[in-house]
Amino acid sequence: MARKTGSHSEITGPRIRAAALKLFARHGYAAVSMRQIAAEVGVQAGALYLYTPDKETLLFELLKSHMDDLIAAWDAEATGGTPLDRLEAFVRFHIRFNLDRPDAVFLSYMELRNLGDENFAIIEGLRREYENRLERILRAGHEAGAFSTPDTKLATLAIIAMLTGVNTWYREGGRLSRDSVGDIYWDMVRKAVAA
Amino acid sequence: MARKTGSHSEITGPRIRAAALKLFARHGYAAVSMRQIAAEVGVQAGALYLYTPDKETLLFELLKSHMDDLIAAWDAEATGGTPLDRLEAFVRFHIRFNLDRPDAVFLSYMELRNLGDENFAIIEGLRREYENRLERILRAGHEAGAFSTPDTKLATLAIIAMLTGVNTWYREGGRLSRDSVGDIYWDMVRKAVAA
Repeated sequence: MARKTGSHSEITGPRIRAAALKLFARHGYAAVSMRQIAAEVGVQAGALYLYTPDKETLLFELLKSHMDDLIAAWDAEATGGTPLDRLEAFVRFHIRFNLDRPDAVFLSYMELRNLGDENFAIIEGLRREYENRLERILRAGHEAGAFSTPDTKLATLAIIAMLTGVNTWYREGGRLSRDSVGDIYWDMVRKAVAA
Repeated sequence: MARKTGSHSEITGPRIRAAALKLFARHGYAAVSMRQIAAEVGVQAGALYLYTPDKETLLFELLKSHMDDLIAAWDAEATGGTPLDRLEAFVRFHIRFNLDRPDAVFLSYMELRNLGDENFAIIEGLRREYENRLERILRAGHEAGAFSTPDTKLATLAIIAMLTGVNTWYREGGRLSRDSVGDIYWDMVRKAVAA
């Protein structure tokens, strides 16, 4: 997509994306106008169109940068070790990364349907790339006899759904620390794939 | 909420709810107008207001009837037996019930934020009632030494998130039958809570 380059847009682009993320997460993509986003940033609506051709492009950029960040963060953190070590690292990483970004996670699930076919396919592709990283761990463990996951694809989707669900109920300062949640979910995942 | 009684509304109410469910699921609650719902039903927009005071009430009725149906269906199906038997029945029931109602499940997750506080609390209460049914099974199994679920509340939320996730990827006529999906998820859940 076309985007202006230079210092001006580099300053304003992140502010526009932050404002859009906040408003989309709070009110829903369909209910938010470009005018409201401009007001949140403190610019005229016309100025917004210097940085983004339309609202869908803003949504797409938010969802894409979330997936890019997720994959890059995992690739930076993923270590070697046994499949069991790698699976534990994945479980704790996924919970932590998502809890740090509640709005972006919420948006990624809620507003995917508002993307056009081409943008949707790109986000779906990035999700698949992320899922493949978990699936490779499960397959390695299954082949080594450490795990029993008769269908590694379904195990992948089941584990990610389970872990992402933490975002729907976790409250900072509640009865459980993030580490305790990580411990409890790791216990369940470890057993779920056990040989 | 006020609702007209009598044969006329009994015929039209379900049609209005079916039209609203279809349009909300397809386009999102915020993007659908009462006028569009009326057009889908084949009545004037004014006629809609004889049956429902506003769009939020329609959404609330859809989410509430989904939860009422879910709980009633499980209560009708839930059998006795060991905690393991009851857990297996729950896993297979949840997947099957949700796959039969993709639009209602989608709406229940996507549009909850559009309810006012009072209606939101009612839906949350019904969810809790449903979750409690699973949690009681887990607690019974844990106390009997058949399961090891150090935190039955989290295990409940994890299992429901995992099972509900099936709706996001399952396609009728794909490589797996519903029964195969039930078998694979039951294997993971059974192991996840194993002592």
